[in-house]
Amino acid sequence: MTTICAISTPPGMGATAMIRISGPDAFSIAGSISQTPSDIAGLQPNRAKFVSIVDNSEDKQTLLDQAVVTKFAAPHSFTGEDVVEISCHGSVFIQQRIIELLIANGCRMAAPGEFTQRAFLNGKLDLPQAEAIADLIEAQSESAHQLAMRQLRGELSGKMAVLRDELLQMASLIELELDFSEEEVEFADRTALLDLLSNIKAEVHRLLQSYRWGTMLKNGIPVAIAGEPNVGKSTLLNALLQRERAIVSDIPGTTRDTIEDSFTLNGTLFRFIDTAGIRESDDTVERLGIERTFNAIRQAAIVLWVVDARKSDKEKKAELANVPQAVNSDVTKIILIGNKSDLLPHPSERNKQLIPISAKQGENLDAVLREIDSFVRENRVQDTVMLTSARHQSLLAGILSATERAEEGLRNLVPTDLVAEDIRMALHDLGELTGTISTDDILNNIFGKFCIGK
Amino acid sequence: MTTICAISTPPGMGATAMIRISGPDAFSIAGSISQTPSDIAGLQPNRAKFVSIVDNSEDKQTLLDQAVVTKFAAPHSFTGEDVVEISCHGSVFIQQRIIELLIANGCRMAAPGEFTQRAFLNGKLDLPQAEAIADLIEAQSESAHQLAMRQLRGELSGKMAVLRDELLQMASLIELELDFSEEEVEFADRTALLDLLSNIKAEVHRLLQSYRWGTMLKNGIPVAIAGEPNVGKSTLLNALLQRERAIVSDIPGTTRDTIEDSFTLNGTLFRFIDTAGIRESDDTVERLGIERTFNAIRQAAIVLWVVDARKSDKEKKAELANVPQAVNSDVTKIILIGNKSDLLPHPSERNKQLIPISAKQGENLDAVLREIDSFVRENRVQDTVMLTSARHQSLLAGILSATERAEEGLRNLVPTDLVAEDIRMALHDLGELTGTISTDDILNNIFGKFCIGK
Repeated sequence: MTTICAISTPPGMGATAMIRISGPDAFSIAGSISQTPSDIAGLQPNRAKFVSIVDNSEDKQTLLDQAVVTKFAAPHSFTGEDVVEISCHGSVFIQQRIIELLIANGCRMAAPGEFTQRAFLNGKLDLPQAEAIADLIEAQSESAHQLAMRQLRGELSGKMAVLRDELLQMASLIELELDFSEEEVEFADRTALLDLLSNIKAEVHRLLQSYRWGTMLKNGIPVAIAGEPNVGKSTLLNALLQRERAIVSDIPGTTRDTIEDSFTLNGTLFRFIDTAGIRESDDTVERLGIERTFNAIRQAAIVLWVVDARKSDKEKKAELANVPQAVNSDVTKIILIGNKSDLLPHPSERNKQLIPISAKQGENLDAVLREIDSFVRENRVQDTVMLTSARHQSLLAGILSATERAEEGLRNLVPTDLVAEDIRMALHDLGELTGTISTDDILNNIFGKFCIGK
Repeated sequence: MTTICAISTPPGMGATAMIRISGPDAFSIAGSISQTPSDIAGLQPNRAKFVSIVDNSEDKQTLLDQAVVTKFAAPHSFTGEDVVEISCHGSVFIQQRIIELLIANGCRMAAPGEFTQRAFLNGKLDLPQAEAIADLIEAQSESAHQLAMRQLRGELSGKMAVLRDELLQMASLIELELDFSEEEVEFADRTALLDLLSNIKAEVHRLLQSYRWGTMLKNGIPVAIAGEPNVGKSTLLNALLQRERAIVSDIPGTTRDTIEDSFTLNGTLFRFIDTAGIRESDDTVERLGIERTFNAIRQAAIVLWVVDARKSDKEKKAELANVPQAVNSDVTKIILIGNKSDLLPHPSERNKQLIPISAKQGENLDAVLREIDSFVRENRVQDTVMLTSARHQSLLAGILSATERAEEGLRNLVPTDLVAEDIRMALHDLGELTGTISTDDILNNIFGKFCIGK
């Protein structure tokens, strides 16, 4: 096993930076760039020491930096290997020079995620926990952070362990029957087996259902702002973001492509998508824009459908009639908004269906935000594990199919060895999910997405 | 004294980040955001511990991160105060949340350079050493890094201590004479006093002379590329930088403003300045550009004066006749270059005064770089303290004036109390330089330029 090194702190200049070394030669290589190598060799694990780092690449030693060095001895380190952390002054020159010297003295530059990969290979973490570290680092909101933290603490891994126990119980009961199959004895109580399968299916199904909200909480909940041209969609986007994100003018059709920006409300990230106004158009660019609008609406979790409050009730009714078709209304919340309400002579003229606002004056935007927030509160499942990874989703979908096939097989009295094969396939997918079964391809795919230094 | 906190690592996302806390309540505040406060209270100084950091801002504790926490007890820390360093996961969310929690629990956000300022106030560093930390972090080249490192190690401080001893010796001899002045006795041997003053002056003068090269080595050595239009100055810039920095065309006058870019050669940073071609012009923009060219040439340490190699010897002679006037040739190295030498039919036609190159073909650029490098090697004073700070330069210039006045006074037998006053002024400037005399204004000026977290 080679010894690897990388800068672990964010790139660029800072007061301090941290360089991490992991592997069998971590202590001796760190010693070789220290003015007094015994500073490292003699240092107790988990102790920090002020050490002079020297450039020994030429005949004489030149003082490069004075740094705080901490040693962690295998297996009591993040990677499970011997680890040295060098907390140096944060100049780009010093950071790069230390890496160069470590490489000259026997380290290899770490690949993306290689520290975490070693932690996984040394049994410090399972695969979902390792993946959670990347999510944790990238989390932009409290919701995303909490999802990653739960996964890092092993909550998904715990669910998977229960699932594995149940599948193994299934398998052993079926295999037992298989061993005696020539005697045409049915040992296993089919009803008990079906109950067990039904439990498994229900749990897998619940997890799969959490995926939509899980990924939305992780990456930001898409909120499309839609409506006819010139109803004030871009003005509403700017008002919600409290800055001039989109160009606003009185000319209908000013926004021709979708414009996206995000903001955080009560710890949850939202991605607001301002869309081109929907109308019949001969203009090619505008038509492409309108196509994108419909895509954005279909993918949104929430659609803010904006109507000009000054239109007649009949016009509004006609306009809103098409909304449900455009929106995937089974899973999408539609919030109907009457903009430019400040221009109505009498409040009594307001349409009860619409939330009256003035985007331009910033009036009643709170009502819109409250609607958004309450929809999220209703839908996000609190205090439970949620799927947030496409890899997990795909493997659990495979497990669901396999258990459904097994269930059907049991009901239809197909040969037991076929049912056993389905359970084995489910167990295989589960092993891939938790990492007990892994190939280089799977690991490269997962850890290649990490940043270097992690 | 309040307890301060800041993110010490570069801004942004990374595998890890470090948050530093310093002040009398550092341990208890760090304990208050730990799941088990005794983790911090019971931790020995200079030991690292894996600690669960919790968000306790609401009724319940939520796990925020698992971090490595190291304690440093006063006075054995960077600031001389109790210090806690939290090495957390490097998500922007976690970094900001920890800072928010520390502030909610009694910390104040550190001002720029406040950790270093506290180190200075607690006598861990003098002022030039504190200033060297900012330089160290910003150093972009080995030369700049070495200058800052020498200053951090106290080499300038050492020189200043010698100077102070000498000035104090002067002062005591003169004050002694002053005490007995009514008896009209001259105790001090004037020749010895003048010798001492001469030593002081020589040392201060030497330091002041190092300032020009000191700042150039710190910030980059300015190299102007000059010559008539269309001789290939921009092509030479691109060839030296090995990338397309400047727009190049056959049209004379393509470069109208100075273009600057830097590159490092043998550990020293150079700032190359491509200039507008020098010619008579009625075009206002071009004339402004040419004015800038002359400014750049005057400020340069090295001028690469480019001539078209295909011109006749007479034309070249006429062109080069004006070079010395344009260049401040006392302190500036002029390197004469004959570009487009590849287009000469016979190498024998080359002018011996000019280094023949082809910027377009990348031919013989090494000869230019060797000239630049050898000039720097001749001029940079090796292994000695150099001034790199305008503040030091200005105070030392004040010390030089005061000692000159004192010398003149001694020679002209002016009343001794006037000479004594000059020496006191020199000592005052010296005290300001090292920081034994400091005001809030001086400190704010110095530390305000630091980055936050240092």
